[in-house]
Amino acid sequence: MRTVTLGLAVSLDHFIARENHAVDWLQWSKDVAAISAEYWKTIDTVLMGRKTFQMTRTAYPGVTNIVFSRTLQAAAGVTIVDSPPARYVRALKAREGKGIAVIGGGVLARALFDGGVIDELALNIHPVLLGRGIPLFHRLKKQLDLELLDHRLLQHQCVLLRYRVKR
Amino acid sequence: MRTVTLGLAVSLDHFIARENHAVDWLQWSKDVAAISAEYWKTIDTVLMGRKTFQMTRTAYPGVTNIVFSRTLQAAAGVTIVDSPPARYVRALKAREGKGIAVIGGGVLARALFDGGVIDELALNIHPVLLGRGIPLFHRLKKQLDLELLDHRLLQHQCVLLRYRVKR
Repeated sequence: MRTVTLGLAVSLDHFIARENHAVDWLQWSKDVAAISAEYWKTIDTVLMGRKTFQMTRTAYPGVTNIVFSRTLQAAAGVTIVDSPPARYVRALKAREGKGIAVIGGGVLARALFDGGVIDELALNIHPVLLGRGIPLFHRLKKQLDLELLDHRLLQHQCVLLRYRVKR
Repeated sequence: MRTVTLGLAVSLDHFIARENHAVDWLQWSKDVAAISAEYWKTIDTVLMGRKTFQMTRTAYPGVTNIVFSRTLQAAAGVTIVDSPPARYVRALKAREGKGIAVIGGGVLARALFDGGVIDELALNIHPVLLGRGIPLFHRLKKQLDLELLDHRLLQHQCVLLRYRVKR
């Protein structure tokens, strides 16, 4: 079964972007680049919600880019999927393939958490309270217990926490 | 100047209690006990909001217990303060004394963050997504930059993150 990982950089108060979608507060560093490069070798698919795609307008090279939306028109480099995300991802996991990365945002994450299809969670916690912005976490239908897989200090005083979702 | 520390145990999604105020998910361990014991030697005052006090009904021994509320009647072992928390704490910090602990909850934390009187922040992050509950973080008036002071693995896969609020 393919592993679905939600991986995101967040402020300590768990915003993934400012209210105006700016991510100027994000720190990039050699160690984050190295971790990302290793991780990207293990995946062949990235999933994003409509808002994330509209914010970034980025299709990542070398992987299948899937954007969940009931309203978006076709866009270069991405596959628009208008069926319920959790059901779609459940079917995707059953197929042959490498890992699957959920790269945003909170609305998609909620649907996938509630649908029980996220296997791992990696947060790169930045040393800042943004105070307001686009939240990573929304109300979930039920509690999810986690197993800590890794905790690591990164450059710029960022902390990486990695968890497995217990079933 | 006395140091004001907000120290709390939280779920990974930053709830400090379930919606019904239950904290049955909290893990207690020898290392948390040791850290707490050392920390309590450095303080002489604990601050809490009305809701936290009504939830716990606890006055801690050996320290001054201050509860911020405009409505509460006197209660055994605690001092009820009905003036604005940030202004009160600013005056408190200017007096002689040991450290000051903010032990909850989110509403008080917001007032004190916005008032610029919190110096340090310690989160004991538990490996669980509660999905819903009483949140630690509320919207702040402005961004607060942090300096990571410590990150430590505790028992039960909890992670302690300690920050200083930059001025």
